Amino acid sequence: MKNIKLVVEYDGTNYCGWQRQINAVSIEDKLRKAIEGILREEVKIVGSSRTDAGVHAKGQVVNFFTEATIPTERLSNAINSKLPPDIAVLEAEEVDLDFHSRYSCKGKRYSYTILNRKMPSPIYRNYAAHCSHELDFLKMKRAGEHFLGTKDFTAFKSTGSSAKTSVRTINYIEVTKEEDFIKIFIEADGFLYNMVRIIAGTLIDVGRNKIYVEDIPDIINSKDRNRAGKTAPAQGLCLEKIYY
Amino acid sequence: MKNIKLVVEYDGTNYCGWQRQINAVSIEDKLRKAIEGILREEVKIVGSSRTDAGVHAKGQVVNFFTEATIPTERLSNAINSKLPPDIAVLEAEEVDLDFHSRYSCKGKRYSYTILNRKMPSPIYRNYAAHCSHELDFLKMKRAGEHFLGTKDFTAFKSTGSSAKTSVRTINYIEVTKEEDFIKIFIEADGFLYNMVRIIAGTLIDVGRNKIYVEDIPDIINSKDRNRAGKTAPAQGLCLEKIYY
Repeated sequence: MKNIKLVVEYDGTNYCGWQRQINAVSIEDKLRKAIEGILREEVKIVGSSRTDAGVHAKGQVVNFFTEATIPTERLSNAINSKLPPDIAVLEAEEVDLDFHSRYSCKGKRYSYTILNRKMPSPIYRNYAAHCSHELDFLKMKRAGEHFLGTKDFTAFKSTGSSAKTSVRTINYIEVTKEEDFIKIFIEADGFLYNMVRIIAGTLIDVGRNKIYVEDIPDIINSKDRNRAGKTAPAQGLCLEKIYY
Repeated sequence: MKNIKLVVEYDGTNYCGWQRQINAVSIEDKLRKAIEGILREEVKIVGSSRTDAGVHAKGQVVNFFTEATIPTERLSNAINSKLPPDIAVLEAEEVDLDFHSRYSCKGKRYSYTILNRKMPSPIYRNYAAHCSHELDFLKMKRAGEHFLGTKDFTAFKSTGSSAKTSVRTINYIEVTKEEDFIKIFIEADGFLYNMVRIIAGTLIDVGRNKIYVEDIPDIINSKDRNRAGKTAPAQGLCLEKIYY
């Protein structure tokens, strides 16, 4: 038996999210069926992150066990031949039998993209959150730094999170601006449900002067979801990379 | 009577192109109907560039005459309320009665985006041409410079071009590389039918060592379409800006 690890990119626009749902098309389903179509056996695939509807991934990681004998180096192209163009396997490799895409994960990197201009953008409509209010980028950048470190992020999770603890370590956050785009890059040992989108929504409020930069530590300490910003829209979010 | 100039952005993926066609949905049609829905009168809109199916625009320019009294500053939002999310008016202004989006045009800027990596990209599938062969970026950059100047670009036009002369002046070309993306930015007083896509296809062949950098002047002088590269795919092309 082999344990296969895949790195997968997808455009989440047309799916109900990563995870299977009744009466909806999930990325997990599409990928599993493509793999089964190639291997001609049933497989159970485990994704590292259960991304929501509309969220994208450049580096989702999945693993599955198989008895099939197809050479691993041919697997990516073979599976891609069975996938729609909005999902693609980028890499396939055989890994140790104890590798688990979720439990073996040491950290994750997400990006969040905001288009900050008056008019919406047809070209980026599915890949950036549109904010028509002028954002103070430097304040957002300074506010971002307050999220660094090991903290209880209860104020930055949506209900529905099944995690045992709300303590996470954010070891990298960067806010960049290029033309009309403000991007947030963030890395942590793990994220709570909607955590990146709530941090993004909070930074947007900082940029709009609705939340003060120096209030961020207080908001974190309050553990009160109502004091943080709104959950920013799904389409701005992209799962960039999983670290093992 | 007022002459109104609009700057329009669109994602060309789901359209037959700018221009009206029988049994197909064009961007021109969608925009005209939206304008007519707001102004409650028939209008004839003139677009500066007849972009092909799948080609995008960040700065298409159109103009039309109207007797309607709606304030021009409200026009963009009003028209956008009648448009699907893949088309949007970015700017509206009243211009001189003799302004014509096509005949008054002094120059155009296009970009062409190539994703150069082994695997295709679901996220960029509609916004970049995928080239899985390794491209020599520096050769492409050097080859690009041979296109600068006033030349007869007969070798770089598709049949179906109705232009009286094939002489055009390319006054700017830049080839850039950022991560896996190679982008070509090109400005000219005007372009022949498919000219940017054939230049892009030729530069791709240079990057693949199928055409030599130093052969570009010869290929231009030959006026032989067969000596240039293939017409690169539509989705990599974007009309960036029209100059007046």
